[in-house]
Amino acid sequence: MAGAYQDKQAVSGLLADGDPVIYTGFDAEVPFESGHLVFRTTVISAGTVGSEFFMTKGHHHIRDSAELYVGMSGEGIMVMESRGGDFACEPLTPSAAVYVPPGWAHRTVNTGSEPLSFLSVYFGDAGHDYESVEKSGFSRRVHRGETGPELRETAAE
Amino acid sequence: MAGAYQDKQAVSGLLADGDPVIYTGFDAEVPFESGHLVFRTTVISAGTVGSEFFMTKGHHHIRDSAELYVGMSGEGIMVMESRGGDFACEPLTPSAAVYVPPGWAHRTVNTGSEPLSFLSVYFGDAGHDYESVEKSGFSRRVHRGETGPELRETAAE
Repeated sequence: MAGAYQDKQAVSGLLADGDPVIYTGFDAEVPFESGHLVFRTTVISAGTVGSEFFMTKGHHHIRDSAELYVGMSGEGIMVMESRGGDFACEPLTPSAAVYVPPGWAHRTVNTGSEPLSFLSVYFGDAGHDYESVEKSGFSRRVHRGETGPELRETAAE
Repeated sequence: MAGAYQDKQAVSGLLADGDPVIYTGFDAEVPFESGHLVFRTTVISAGTVGSEFFMTKGHHHIRDSAELYVGMSGEGIMVMESRGGDFACEPLTPSAAVYVPPGWAHRTVNTGSEPLSFLSVYFGDAGHDYESVEKSGFSRRVHRGETGPELRETAAE
């Protein structure tokens, strides 16, 4: 997911240093079919690429449908953006539920110093569209600022 | 939900003592519509009716669809029964996810000495059918036994 981060020089440095695993997902054995609820645990390591916090690639669902996240450990932020360009973010903390409404692209960001782990639940037939997020990206990104996480506009490439 | 428990004399006693609140649900503000995932926190008090542990009424979904439970605090058991009469149960403990597949009636039982709280997630258009559970009931129930929770066959009324 080298392309996801803003600072291309920092990405090159990380890749040269051995291409670290930034996040890992553990899937429950549930059919990817209508009527089922798929659930997954994701763990995002703590760290930054340049000043941008480690995060997931982010995706839309192919079939517009909601996803629910429940924080398990660590501290993070859920970043959401609608197809119409509305932007929102919510803290993702232990035992807190964060709702991603149908039609919003979403990405999770680890803003803490420990691994961020969470449960996510979505429709078995939701499908994942990573491509449109790769193309259009999110309009804002979460960086390590002087006093804590900061939202900054995505710079034109 | 007086009718849900096996021991009718114990039910009458409880009602005479002031009809205690056995469980309470707190709903998130999510539309009960297709594409949405409704989520709710439920808290079941600790206690028994006769020897039968405090529990939820139990339900089928009107539209066969899965439900996911995540334990938050306390100790309990998820009781599940398919329309074909297959029976299953799973422990419901903090941070554990329990999957209820489409087409299975389900009920949660507090088998501990503290309140049992959990998150449940289901399809916005799932609908709730409490009636068929009221009529046919679950074939087994969870009682306080000498050394811990015990599953016992539901006696004919």
